[in-house]
Order: sequence, then C-alpha cells, then structure tokens
Amino acid sequence: MIHILWDKPAVTVVGLMSGTSLDGIDVAIARIEGCGLDSQVELLHYYSRPYEPVLRERLKSLCTVEYSNVALVCGMNSFLADRFAEAVHEAAREAGMDMGSIDFISSHGQTVWHIPEADAYDLLLVRSTLQLGDISVLAKRAGKPVVGDFRPADIAVGGQGAPLAPYGDLILFRHPDKGRLLQNVGGIGNCTALPAGCSAADVFAFDTGPGNMIIDQVVLVLTEGRASYDEGGTWAAQGSVDEALVSEMMSHPYFLLAPPKSTGREVFGKAYASAFIAKAKERGLSDADIVATATSFTAHSIADGYQKHVIPRCRIDEVIVTGGGAHNQTLLRMLADLLPEQSVMTSESLGFNDDAKEAVIFALLGNDFMNGISNNLPSATGAAHPTIMGKLALP
Amino acid sequence: MIHILWDKPAVTVVGLMSGTSLDGIDVAIARIEGCGLDSQVELLHYYSRPYEPVLRERLKSLCTVEYSNVALVCGMNSFLADRFAEAVHEAAREAGMDMGSIDFISSHGQTVWHIPEADAYDLLLVRSTLQLGDISVLAKRAGKPVVGDFRPADIAVGGQGAPLAPYGDLILFRHPDKGRLLQNVGGIGNCTALPAGCSAADVFAFDTGPGNMIIDQVVLVLTEGRASYDEGGTWAAQGSVDEALVSEMMSHPYFLLAPPKSTGREVFGKAYASAFIAKAKERGLSDADIVATATSFTAHSIADGYQKHVIPRCRIDEVIVTGGGAHNQTLLRMLADLLPEQSVMTSESLGFNDDAKEAVIFALLGNDFMNGISNNLPSATGAAHPTIMGKLALP
Ligand SMILES: Nc1ncnc2c1ncn2[C@@H]1O[C@H](COP(=O)(O)OP(=O)(O)OP(=O)(O)O)[C@@H](O)[C@H]1O
Ligand SMILES: Nc1ncnc2c1ncn2[C@@H]1O[C@H](COP(=O)(O)OP(=O)(O)OP(=O)(O)O)[C@@H](O)[C@H]1O
Repeated sequence: MIHILWDKPAVTVVGLMSGTSLDGIDVAIARIEGCGLDSQVELLHYYSRPYEPVLRERLKSLCTVEYSNVALVCGMNSFLADRFAEAVHEAAREAGMDMGSIDFISSHGQTVWHIPEADAYDLLLVRSTLQLGDISVLAKRAGKPVVGDFRPADIAVGGQGAPLAPYGDLILFRHPDKGRLLQNVGGIGNCTALPAGCSAADVFAFDTGPGNMIIDQVVLVLTEGRASYDEGGTWAAQGSVDEALVSEMMSHPYFLLAPPKSTGREVFGKAYASAFIAKAKERGLSDADIVATATSFTAHSIADGYQKHVIPRCRIDEVIVTGGGAHNQTLLRMLADLLPEQSVMTSESLGFNDDAKEAVIFALLGNDFMNGISNNLPSATGAAHPTIMGKLALP
Repeated sequence: MIHILWDKPAVTVVGLMSGTSLDGIDVAIARIEGCGLDSQVELLHYYSRPYEPVLRERLKSLCTVEYSNVALVCGMNSFLADRFAEAVHEAAREAGMDMGSIDFISSHGQTVWHIPEADAYDLLLVRSTLQLGDISVLAKRAGKPVVGDFRPADIAVGGQGAPLAPYGDLILFRHPDKGRLLQNVGGIGNCTALPAGCSAADVFAFDTGPGNMIIDQVVLVLTEGRASYDEGGTWAAQGSVDEALVSEMMSHPYFLLAPPKSTGREVFGKAYASAFIAKAKERGLSDADIVATATSFTAHSIADGYQKHVIPRCRIDEVIVTGGGAHNQTLLRMLADLLPEQSVMTSESLGFNDDAKEAVIFALLGNDFMNGISNNLPSATGAAHPTIMGKLALP
C-alpha cells in the first residue's frame, strides 16, 4: 500500500484555477483542516491574474481542431506552467506570505479539449480530456509539490470528468433546512443542486449550457475586439430581446439531455456565436439587441435546466449565482424574472468571496488527494464510483 | 514535508517503454530492492506488444505539425493509456503473475513532440516535451499506482529531457574496477561512459553518430526494398571495405564536436545514404563492398568517438553493445578490430535481456520517484541539478 504522509494536521494550500473562458489565472491561498466532507477551509488570500490578449487568442486557437497542432500543445503545456508558477509567487507576495509557509499547490490546469463521449467515427477519439499547465514544470518553478490534472481520472471511471465544483459546493454550501442551487456562470454555466440536509449521494449537478461564452464572443465581435465582455450587463440592458430567436435557440438538443451532462467550447464556442450573430443581423437586430438576446438565451438555458431537471426532483429555496456572470446585472434580473418561486442571490451576498470559489475548491480536491481519499462526486459526474482524482509532481 | 511511504523493502514494478521508432510497447516486470545507485534489480518477465500498422500510422501523423490537432492529442493520450493497461495485464498473465503481486507501474509514455531548445520565432514554443498515455487513466485501468511522464521535470531544471537511459546504465552496468562503455546501436548510435568506480557526476554520454541508419538505408536501396537491414551482418561480411572512402566519410564535422552532442535523421538519413551510394558506385564498388564500407564507417564513427572523447578522459576496459545493431556480427567484429585494448561484447553475453533494458530503466526511475530521490543525470541531460522526475497517479 502507498501512503502519502504529512506531518501536519492543517495545511496551507494554493488552489489554482483557469477557467474555460480563458480569462486568466485565479489563485486562492487557503488554510485547510481535515479532509473530505469534514474539511474546514479558511481563505487567506485571493489573487487573480488575467491572460494578456495575445495569449488568450493563442489559447482560443489552440482550442480548435483547425488552428492547433502537437507542437503548440507541447509548448503551451510548459508555457502555462511557468505562468501558473509566477501567479503563485505573486499571490504569496501580495498576501505578505513567505513561500515557506505554503505546503503544496493544487492546480486545475487550462482545459483545451474535452471529449466526455467517444466519437462514433474515429476510434482514437475515445472519452478523454486535456488540461495544460504541466504540473512537473510548475512544481520545479514554484519549489512545491503540485497536485493537478484531476479530470482524466473521473473520465477513466466512467464519469464526464465534469463538473468537479459540486463536490466543493457540497462542502462549502450544504444547508440543513434550505434547498440550494449553486449556479456558476463562467464560460459555461453549471449548477449544483444541494437538497436541504443532503448527503453526497443526493447532490446532482450538470452544465446548464453556455455561461458567459456566447455573450463574451458576441461583445468581442461587435466591438471589433475593444471589449471582451458586457461589463455589468449594461449593454444588454439597452437592447430588446428577440424572443422568437431565443425560442429557436432553446431547441438545441443539449437542453433536452437528462443530467449528468456537460458541454463546452466545442458546442457553444466561436462557431456557434458567429452563426448566431449572422442570424441576428439577418433579422435586423441592433448590436444592443444582439447582446440582449444572447443574455436572454443564457438566462433561459439556465432556468429551463432547473424546470426540466431539478425542480421536479427536489425543493429549491435559493439560487446562489457565482462566477464572473454574477456581475452581469441584466443576466441576474432575467434569471430572477424566470424563477419567481426562488430567491436569486449572489454568493457575495452570503459573505463568500465568489471569485475565489473555484480556486478554493481545487485546493480542497488537492488536499483530498494528499489524504488519499476520493474527491469526485459520482452523482455529479456520472462516474461509476468514487475515485481519487489528480496527479502529484514533486519539487 | 511530504513523504510517500511503502511498507515493503522490495517492490515489484512494471516498467513500460514506447520508443520513438513507434514500434510498440515494451513491458518489463522487475523486482527492485533499494533505490538510486544502490538499486538491485531482477528482471522477472519481459513482454513486448507491437502497435498495429493503423495505430502506427496515426501516431506518425500525430508527430507532425501538419496532421496533428488538439482533439487527436487529447484522444490519443487516453487511447494509449488503455493500450498500456492492456499490455500490463497481458504481461502479468504471460508471466503467470497475479496482478495483486505488482506494486506499481512506471511508464515512459509515447513521445509525440520534443522541443529541447526554445523556438526563436514563437514565444509560446518554450522548451518542452510531450509524452502521451495518461497516467491517471492507466492507474484506474490497471488498478495500480502509476509513476510516469518523466521528461518535463528534467527540462524544467535546464536539461534536454534526454537521454534518460544513462542513469539506468549507471545503475545496471557500473563496475568498481572496470571502465565500461555502453554502446546502443539503434537508428542512431549513442554511448554512455561509465569510468571504473564512477559516481553519477563522472558519467557522460553522447551520440556517436549513425547506428544502423546508414546500413539499413543502403540495404533498402540496394535490394530495391526487399530487405530493410543486413541480417546478422552477413552481406557486409562478403564485401571488402573501401578504406579511403571511409576516411573521407570520417571527416564529417559531427565527429569533431565535443560531447554532449546529439544527432539524428536530419544529418545521417536518406539524403546522406544516397550520396554515399552514388559515390561508392562511381568508385566501382560492388553491392557487398558498399554494405561492408557502410558498416565499417559506422564502426569507425563509434570507435573514433571513443578515441577522441572518452579514452583521453578515462580508462575503458569493456565495450558493451546493445540495441538492434548488437545482432550485426560484422559490425561487432569491426568494432573489436578497432578497439584492440578493449573487450567488445554484447549485453546478452553478460546475461542481460537487452530488449528489456529501457523498460527496466523506467521501472528504476519510477522506484526512485516513490523513494523521493532524484532520478535524472545532469551530466547526461545538461540539467542544472539533480531532480525528481515523474508524476504519480493513484488507482
Ligand atoms: N463585471 C462584469 N460584468 C459582466 N460580466 C463579467 C464581469 N466580470 C466578469 N464577467 C464575466 O465573467 C467571465 C469570467 O468568469 P469566470 O471567471 O467565472 O469564468 P471561468 O472561471 O473562466 O469559466 P468556467 O467557470 O467556465 O471555467 C468573463 O469572461 C465575463 O464574461
Ligand atoms: N538480426 C539483426 N541483424 C542485423 N541488424 C539487426 C538485427 N536485428 C535488428 N537489427 C538492426 O537494429 C535495428 C533496430 O534497432 P533498435 O530496435 O535498437 O532501434 P530503435 O530502438 O528503433 O532505435 P533507437 O534506439 O534509435 O530509438 C534494425 O533497424 C536493424 O538495423
């Protein structure tokens, strides 16, 4: 039997998250006592470092079949690891912490491809997922053990490799009396249902569809690259929604699939957004109308997911919105309108540093790896059984 | 401090190697006691499984910028891990061993890209290397801890990420009183010098020049594709060597370079062999003479490398030939003639299963990882310092 041993009861962990929206690196320095569902976590510092536009463009290209190749994957894998290491050092400096007080790093990596279902036409395209930001390079640069690259393990035991956050949501947000829905609005939208007084087996989660992905791409195209998102949702607020177009978009087959299910840039990426813009322009929509319609589509895809797949299974009292999309007031308003029975709030309003949430969750996942306990949530990912996700590299 | 602990003094390790010639998977089941330079290793079973031609073709494409993309990298990473797991199960079955008696797996992975020097024209193409065959997927499929993906760590500390084998040569072949030269004759020839009683810092290694590469290409051309190598060296044995032509060939600038140095198909490939054949025909050589002369050139390039770069630095008593070229009796005889002061032998004659060597070496590298000790050899790779290479995934 293998044992990974720590000589400390509590550890200081740096959680690193780089989302599918390709906006940058989130760093959470957290103090964790215990592990698994009994983890007690305290956020010591949150730091965020955006990718510069050139890097973002290169990453976007890398996430396409057309503009990617093996050399770029190879180079980016190390390049990002360097960036992650820099971000760790910067976060520690900003926190006024000595690197010596950090026990280890837990890194999600940058997802560049995700095939939760095998391809029917190419036997080599088996169920798989690819996160870049080599953990060995990161470990050497940061001088710390690194746990990372969690998703392949869940896929290997029959899961979708996503979503992983619900396991953290369960640890952080479960409530004895209230049914809660955690809605993360990142590049993709994903929700975790935490029925009142739930245990691990009761939790379920799925990707609702696009999060900010379409809104962002639309804004990028319409502003010819001058803006990459609709700050506060103010642009959308100035337009009118083309309800017919939204209905048409809601007929996308993804929304009919029963959970667990996950989606990504392959489905709701650049190509999807371009087709949407073309259709919207054909229908004579103004730029503001297009942004409003993209935002409404996003809100509908979320609310529709609840109506179809959550509310029939359990009572929901609160919808807690997290992720960058929680700053989009228009999206929040549209969601509240579509969900009159629930109170729609942000996690910030609960006193929780929302930006840090995912990075904190990866710190928790890494801590579980170090404790040799499973850290996937089969009810969320569809995995056949609990398993230990992650890989370890030494400094 | 992190400790990875085993409750056993000796372990049974499966070493997995898939070489750059893309010919398949080598599996060595080895019993290892101790670690580092004190490792005692016994080969329990060797098993080899070729890739089928279609997979080989897909891998060859994946190793090109033109025909690769991120989806194929993602899929192949998991696909190969499945294959590796199957090979482990098959090897255990063939050996009559219960999987329960295997402690862990150590896997090199399939190299699909290697950039030991940064690209001057693209800042993203940093020094990096990419091995496929996801260790998490392999760990779950085989039900064993897996250490793997060693090269990035050496690159991260300034090394070339290659060659890794000299570290294993040091463990397996160093001798307290005899100076030894390990000569691998694959496509390229490469040697590891192990001075008598050497420690890690005394070892050095370099590519001597062509291995079988020119002989193979000459045979292929002269037989119009009916043979791809000179079986046993019998053809060369029937010809006479054109000594003047060999001398002329030995003036190639590569042989003057001081180690560390490496070469490849770009230098001694098809084009080089064609020019050689043309010149030999001009000089009226028969086909057998041409093969003999190519073989003699290969032998000279090896022996000359020793005379210039090894013997002035340390006494060498034995030259141990490994790799496919060890089956070429004419090459061995010529080498012995050129090295009258040394005994030239094959590793098989020392009772060592040569085919299994590289897979055994990766078992040793994985065992060192598990023991938390460094497993790179800076004198061979050019790394700034010793470091722990590898990543660990749990079953
Ligand atoms: N002030 C704001 N107003 C509107 N939208 C915002 C604001 N701040 C951030 N966003 C949106 O949030 C996005 C980033 O969200 P977040 O950081 O949660 O995504 P991510 O973590 O990359 O994605 P994922 O959770 O899918 O991995 C931005 O691209 C933008 O669309
Ligand atoms: N019986 C034989 N007689 C002569 N030559 C042989 C014989 N068997 C193999 N070889 C030579 O060995 C070559 C294969 O050697 P080997 O398997 O060591 O190469 P490799 O591992 O692909 O190369 P590298 O070590 O460069 O990665 C063949 O191409 C052939 O030239």
